[in-house]
Amino acid sequence: MSRLDDYMKFEAVNETGNTLVMDASPNIGGKGEGVRPMETLLMGVAGCSSIDVVMILKKMRQDLSDIKVQVDGYKEKNGEATKYSRIHVHFKIWGEVKEKKLQEAIQMSLEKYCSVSKILEASADITSSYELNP
Amino acid sequence: MSRLDDYMKFEAVNETGNTLVMDASPNIGGKGEGVRPMETLLMGVAGCSSIDVVMILKKMRQDLSDIKVQVDGYKEKNGEATKYSRIHVHFKIWGEVKEKKLQEAIQMSLEKYCSVSKILEASADITSSYELNP
Repeated sequence: MSRLDDYMKFEAVNETGNTLVMDASPNIGGKGEGVRPMETLLMGVAGCSSIDVVMILKKMRQDLSDIKVQVDGYKEKNGEATKYSRIHVHFKIWGEVKEKKLQEAIQMSLEKYCSVSKILEASADITSSYELNP
Repeated sequence: MSRLDDYMKFEAVNETGNTLVMDASPNIGGKGEGVRPMETLLMGVAGCSSIDVVMILKKMRQDLSDIKVQVDGYKEKNGEATKYSRIHVHFKIWGEVKEKKLQEAIQMSLEKYCSVSKILEASADITSSYELNP
């Protein structure tokens, strides 16, 4: 990861060249011109669980036409640092998908397959909800 | 978070409009055209600890001219999921910085201030190293 300005704006790059711009929040001197590091954890949960749900519904031969996911983190103090006490994942799903199958897919992801949520559940309660063809 | 293709490529957006493109790895059917969700955790550690080190060295009146950080995660199986058993953070620092101050800054970040590493240390050992004016 390299610095993009003379203070706290950074560009991270993974092994395959995909990038993420991060910045500190304005209250500690950043310009808010990138994702905050703590937010990367929530984005990771969103990406991981969405990939799972797409893949599991496909295996179940359900015809998913679109998916949107919102992840909210509820913070609490943890000494000088902050942690998420709860992370809530809300799925919006469109398509010819049976509700029972969707429930199963979400449960399989968050309880078994999603590595990011399995890691974060060591310190946060992870809850979920969904809307089907809202 | 919204889907960008008809399979597993997604764009996450935070409350201030900053974005991250994520994709599944090719071995599970993605195209590798974005950051993998598990990598977001390592990027979060990189961003969080870099922001801390910049801020702490500034408070210590050390003249940092540049910083690069490499974060490596060592995976192990965790049931059907994967976790990082160890995360290593390597700092490269340039500038008129006293080595003792740099050591203190890194230690303060990883042991006390960096929320992302404090969260991840619940399931991974977090280790660090540095080079000063390499």
